[in-house]
Amino acid sequence: MLLPAEFIQLLQNLIPSDRLYLDPVDCYAYAYDNSRKYFPPECVIFPLTTDEVVKIIQLCNRFKIPLTPRGRGTGTAGGSLAEQGGASLSLERMTRIISIDTANRVLVAEPGVLNESVQVAVKPSGFFWPPDPSSAAFSSIGGNLATCAGGPHAVKYGTTRDHVLGLTAVTGQGDIIKTGCYTTKGVVGYDLTRLLIGSEGTLAVITEATLKLTPLPAARSGLVAHYQNAVSCASAIATIMKEPQGPSALEFLDSGSLDLIRSRNPGMLPDDSRAMLMIEVDGTEHEISETTTRLLAACQNSGLLKALPVQNAADLWKARKTLSPLLRDIAPKKINEDIVVPVDKIPRLLTGLSSLCKQYQIPNVNFGHAGNGNIHVNLLIDPDNPGESGRAYKCLNQIFDLVISLNGTLSGEHGIGSEKRPYINKELNEATLTLMKQIKLTFDPCNILNPGKLFP
Amino acid sequence: MLLPAEFIQLLQNLIPSDRLYLDPVDCYAYAYDNSRKYFPPECVIFPLTTDEVVKIIQLCNRFKIPLTPRGRGTGTAGGSLAEQGGASLSLERMTRIISIDTANRVLVAEPGVLNESVQVAVKPSGFFWPPDPSSAAFSSIGGNLATCAGGPHAVKYGTTRDHVLGLTAVTGQGDIIKTGCYTTKGVVGYDLTRLLIGSEGTLAVITEATLKLTPLPAARSGLVAHYQNAVSCASAIATIMKEPQGPSALEFLDSGSLDLIRSRNPGMLPDDSRAMLMIEVDGTEHEISETTTRLLAACQNSGLLKALPVQNAADLWKARKTLSPLLRDIAPKKINEDIVVPVDKIPRLLTGLSSLCKQYQIPNVNFGHAGNGNIHVNLLIDPDNPGESGRAYKCLNQIFDLVISLNGTLSGEHGIGSEKRPYINKELNEATLTLMKQIKLTFDPCNILNPGKLFP
Repeated sequence: MLLPAEFIQLLQNLIPSDRLYLDPVDCYAYAYDNSRKYFPPECVIFPLTTDEVVKIIQLCNRFKIPLTPRGRGTGTAGGSLAEQGGASLSLERMTRIISIDTANRVLVAEPGVLNESVQVAVKPSGFFWPPDPSSAAFSSIGGNLATCAGGPHAVKYGTTRDHVLGLTAVTGQGDIIKTGCYTTKGVVGYDLTRLLIGSEGTLAVITEATLKLTPLPAARSGLVAHYQNAVSCASAIATIMKEPQGPSALEFLDSGSLDLIRSRNPGMLPDDSRAMLMIEVDGTEHEISETTTRLLAACQNSGLLKALPVQNAADLWKARKTLSPLLRDIAPKKINEDIVVPVDKIPRLLTGLSSLCKQYQIPNVNFGHAGNGNIHVNLLIDPDNPGESGRAYKCLNQIFDLVISLNGTLSGEHGIGSEKRPYINKELNEATLTLMKQIKLTFDPCNILNPGKLFP
Repeated sequence: MLLPAEFIQLLQNLIPSDRLYLDPVDCYAYAYDNSRKYFPPECVIFPLTTDEVVKIIQLCNRFKIPLTPRGRGTGTAGGSLAEQGGASLSLERMTRIISIDTANRVLVAEPGVLNESVQVAVKPSGFFWPPDPSSAAFSSIGGNLATCAGGPHAVKYGTTRDHVLGLTAVTGQGDIIKTGCYTTKGVVGYDLTRLLIGSEGTLAVITEATLKLTPLPAARSGLVAHYQNAVSCASAIATIMKEPQGPSALEFLDSGSLDLIRSRNPGMLPDDSRAMLMIEVDGTEHEISETTTRLLAACQNSGLLKALPVQNAADLWKARKTLSPLLRDIAPKKINEDIVVPVDKIPRLLTGLSSLCKQYQIPNVNFGHAGNGNIHVNLLIDPDNPGESGRAYKCLNQIFDLVISLNGTLSGEHGIGSEKRPYINKELNEATLTLMKQIKLTFDPCNILNPGKLFP
């Protein structure tokens, strides 16, 4: 689409030129995210205030111009791409931390503040903000909220929706709404806070967030456990998750992951390990020692090769952190899913994955946040190989059916965006989807906010 | 209103006579809740299945009959009363616990299951469900969800919205929706689960809930602290809440509460105490000992009279539990609010309350969940005393203004119902309220579900 000249003129009256990109070359940097799709917007707008967001949305409504809110573009589901053209609304310059109130454990921030900036700001007072997607150093609070970001520590601390008290947002109609409150209890009206969290910029643009802080644990430690096979490892996961004092992270790596790490890092891992758990525990020294003892016991079963405490938490994450770059290296166009199944269904998931990937001849590597049953299923395809893409998507379709049959969900943390849109009706019934579409139009009657996303 | 004969006939075809009350005498038991208001419904319907709820809602839509969902009627805000007449939909006979899945920490239940029945069902496996309103022995899961119930342990465990994974519900249009999922992570579509939690039966009727269970703490213990005055006590609350390992309950009683308890229970409390904290801690024996030591230190300030550990958790709650019946006894028609302020604003709240109640000559007693800043403000009026009611409502209006000026919220756990409806626009701006009304009509286009509630 081409933007109408009058729209551009009015936009220029509203936003100074250093905060408005119109040149396609400038706009191109906003055409992509981590989904590896490309949809160049016709313009990129960088608002600084809630009032500017109101005026931009009003203008887009008047001309029916699609407006796609964007944090730092680290999402993997295409949620921040201007798929139908129009304007990209980059919140990356709204970077003020408005207040840090440690007495009440609250931080108020604009959406462009990086996740890591929040952590740096509150660490000296002994706090952190728990959502920790792997992009935390670079992704923004606004993006974390829009996708309800998770991460490895969600097994103990929950996801984004558990750590937000209130929001200021501008609806698709251009109205400023205030949701939630400043306190840890509050039941006045409908819970619009959590309705907006995870809505991927389709309902409203978040311009301010009241975040709930959590005390930093005194210390972190952990252990690693190696298994003869995935099934014994998956059975240990279920045993570990029965412990009342659970881990602060419980990451799983399958044999494909371990082979890949071994191929580039000789000596990093034992040769005979076919499945590995990385278990982090946090708390006081005494809690760590008590929990480590109990979790070491929970690791024991006939398939265990060895389980060892690791004193230094950074060492614990070493193998896990080498994995994603390696996967990118060998299969830059891989399909990376983030399905979830109940913890006791992980063995059946892994068996099913193995047989489906064999049937469709798709190289497959699985790892992820096992404590939540959230497994990153990687299909290591090269779309340039004839037929591979077609087989992979047939396989993926059956993987999703398997997940649903195991009472799981299609996405634990990445969201729907455009990537999982064709599959969403496997999980949501028609009435639920219809209601969600009606809610979308209640917030955004002209369907200008991130149009086409989420819904099939 | 009188129900149309045809509506009654069709209802009788749908629901057998032992599950349909039409006699006003039978219906009268469903005319009231703990708000002490009376609105007799024209009929009371007791469905047993989701499909019956669908058919009832369809019928009410056809005849435009108000339908007010009801749990056990323990709410204090009038949320379950058939204010506009019509039908009361009592979910109290949907009492099946559908599954207990301790491997995945999940219990699936119908809405009529009592909170306490859930606790009894999962305790042998070492779990509990954290929401603990004081009505827990008698209130239902459905009611707890409809109001987003809290309770004293919310300071550590959060409220209802933090402990529900998914729902089956029937909208005001009669559509069956499934929200959320069965796993602890999930971001597929909008978060309708939390939109329904706390919506007081105005959007949909919950017919099944997937509850997230929490491991029972190994032990409970606590301490009590007595202060010379409310301000030093309130300052200790803020200090306690700065501790990383906080209490599992932190209850405050002001001098009015203590005088009342002393007047009926000589010797239960020290004579010189003008403010008291009851502090519960839970965890392993070692955690309890460590946390108790730290919280005892946090209690110290110049206004402290004494702080003592209490070994038996039941002893800890003794004074607190005598209070509500006493208040009912001396002022059966008292006004009981559940406002919330940020923890560090409690001193200013208490000072303000004292001066407002003096100004309007209203006897006042305050106590409650201080760790969340959630104070039960009791105005001990007798509406039969000329002028007292009028003065009390003027005072209340200013109390709400004070709460909002301190960045607080009008209700922490009771909800809006009809009682706080006139005040809701002190907290929510016009655009937010309008949007909420639109959402209401999206779920319930004929406005049959609990009509008139929540909105001014």
